[in-house]
Amino acid sequence: MDQNTLQDPLYYKRILLTVDGDDPKSNTRAFRFAVTLAHDYGAELGIVSVMENDDINIFDSLTPSKIKEKRDHLKQIVELYAHEAEKIVSKYVVDALEFEGGDVDDVIVEQVIPSFKPDLIVSGSDTQRSTIVGSIGTRLAKKAPVSVIVVR
Amino acid sequence: MDQNTLQDPLYYKRILLTVDGDDPKSNTRAFRFAVTLAHDYGAELGIVSVMENDDINIFDSLTPSKIKEKRDHLKQIVELYAHEAEKIVSKYVVDALEFEGGDVDDVIVEQVIPSFKPDLIVSGSDTQRSTIVGSIGTRLAKKAPVSVIVVR
Repeated sequence: MDQNTLQDPLYYKRILLTVDGDDPKSNTRAFRFAVTLAHDYGAELGIVSVMENDDINIFDSLTPSKIKEKRDHLKQIVELYAHEAEKIVSKYVVDALEFEGGDVDDVIVEQVIPSFKPDLIVSGSDTQRSTIVGSIGTRLAKKAPVSVIVVR
Repeated sequence: MDQNTLQDPLYYKRILLTVDGDDPKSNTRAFRFAVTLAHDYGAELGIVSVMENDDINIFDSLTPSKIKEKRDHLKQIVELYAHEAEKIVSKYVVDALEFEGGDVDDVIVEQVIPSFKPDLIVSGSDTQRSTIVGSIGTRLAKKAPVSVIVVR
């Protein structure tokens, strides 16, 4: 145990908030914590939402207009959060990031993290999701190469 | 989305740091983050270490002196961290908590959380542990009823 190192504060400089299109309650607390931390430590904040394959059923996936509708819905949610975040961390907010593809956690680990380079990921607890697969936050807590907080 | 609520800061008032007897590197970063947050927000800090069944092999478990040795080792580690924490968050630090029993994550969920009532758990990433079972932090991220950060 290096006692000198222990005295060094540890804070995050690039915070990535993940937003779930279907879980406003869980998003709200995660948003508040990410914004509080970004504000108080002058960190850069990114907000990301990923359209999940699971969110599109097989019938909808054959209908381009349905996919567009879901994509637009998600885009709108992310932009609303980005807009609210800018009121508090105006200097630092980055544009909302949007991705789509396979599993959300894989997309975040393989595409979003290398691109945004966060040192902390803030996720809600996905109150509605199956406890067997686990929420995106808990899956990221296991897989991501950076710190992850699951906010409840 | 309630825009008034979104503007409210969210910070933690009771932070529980979990310490692993065998992983100083992982402990150090988790300690630094927990202490930084507790210092900056005036939160109460608890430090807990749980002796895991896995840490005691079947032969040692038959030898009371071996168990005592491991328990003393863990106790010493927790006290060292508590001592370092007190230098920074002197007003708020609570005594080191020690538990033992089944799986660490179950002991924390069933005994430590109801006792200390944290609103945030800070865990290291357990660099040495099996990725299949997952670290204590990732297991807590899934199971605990409060926010959990896995520090990497």
